[in-house]
Amino acid sequence: MNVEFINPFLISLINVISTMASMELKPGKPQLKSHEIAKGDVSGLIGMVGPKTKGSLSITFEEPLILEIMHKMLGEKPNFINEEITDLVGEITNMVTGGAKNLLGDKGYEFNMATPVVVTGKNHTISHKAEGKKIMMPFSHQYGSAYIEICFED
Amino acid sequence: MNVEFINPFLISLINVISTMASMELKPGKPQLKSHEIAKGDVSGLIGMVGPKTKGSLSITFEEPLILEIMHKMLGEKPNFINEEITDLVGEITNMVTGGAKNLLGDKGYEFNMATPVVVTGKNHTISHKAEGKKIMMPFSHQYGSAYIEICFED
Repeated sequence: MNVEFINPFLISLINVISTMASMELKPGKPQLKSHEIAKGDVSGLIGMVGPKTKGSLSITFEEPLILEIMHKMLGEKPNFINEEITDLVGEITNMVTGGAKNLLGDKGYEFNMATPVVVTGKNHTISHKAEGKKIMMPFSHQYGSAYIEICFED
Repeated sequence: MNVEFINPFLISLINVISTMASMELKPGKPQLKSHEIAKGDVSGLIGMVGPKTKGSLSITFEEPLILEIMHKMLGEKPNFINEEITDLVGEITNMVTGGAKNLLGDKGYEFNMATPVVVTGKNHTISHKAEGKKIMMPFSHQYGSAYIEICFED
């Protein structure tokens, strides 16, 4: 996978969380993912289909972090991951992928997005099964971690 | 969502499991899904993008059922959900969606498939966030249950 694919997703998540919740996620070092190491409590997933490539993206949050994002947005803090939270994670997934799609479209990489799916469950793991390199981008915040994973088939 | 969309997925899963593992899944009554009720231990998810529609599919298995499917295919039974099992669930997701795509293409409904993602985690739940009706198709077997869920945006 071209390294140009990484930054648009990374920038897009930081922008979305900063705009929606006035919170600053600190990006860690993007890495090739060889095992299913990004564990979390709620994940948004979306498929991408372009004329030359197809793939999948996931954004995984630890529970305390996504609850705080909701808190900062609405002033109220749910005690657990409810349907409002999964709706929010679906929206974030759409916005991050849409933001990256625009940035990548400017560079000539085109794809269309499917619709998001949100998974909840303590410590679930995600395996992207496209036959291509898997990139994992970790993000940290005092409330917890988040991870973007993308995988494209050439 | 058109009811014509349901049977191709239902038939396709029954065929795939019958062909790969000589096991007969019994279909229950397809239903509109209003809550996140299909819980399971391993799920394959895939995005679909067509000129007129986009959506998502998930296939969720309870652990004893997917372990028995692997047993019937290979003669060996893993004790837990390992990478072989998630690879198998990714393949089943591809095959079922590909089978349904062919049947639906014959009827003039076209879509392209993204690549599958597999989620593992005890009792996780799946929420499809497309703005359209969600259809849930339950399947039963003496070893456990499986569920297909599809959601398309018009």
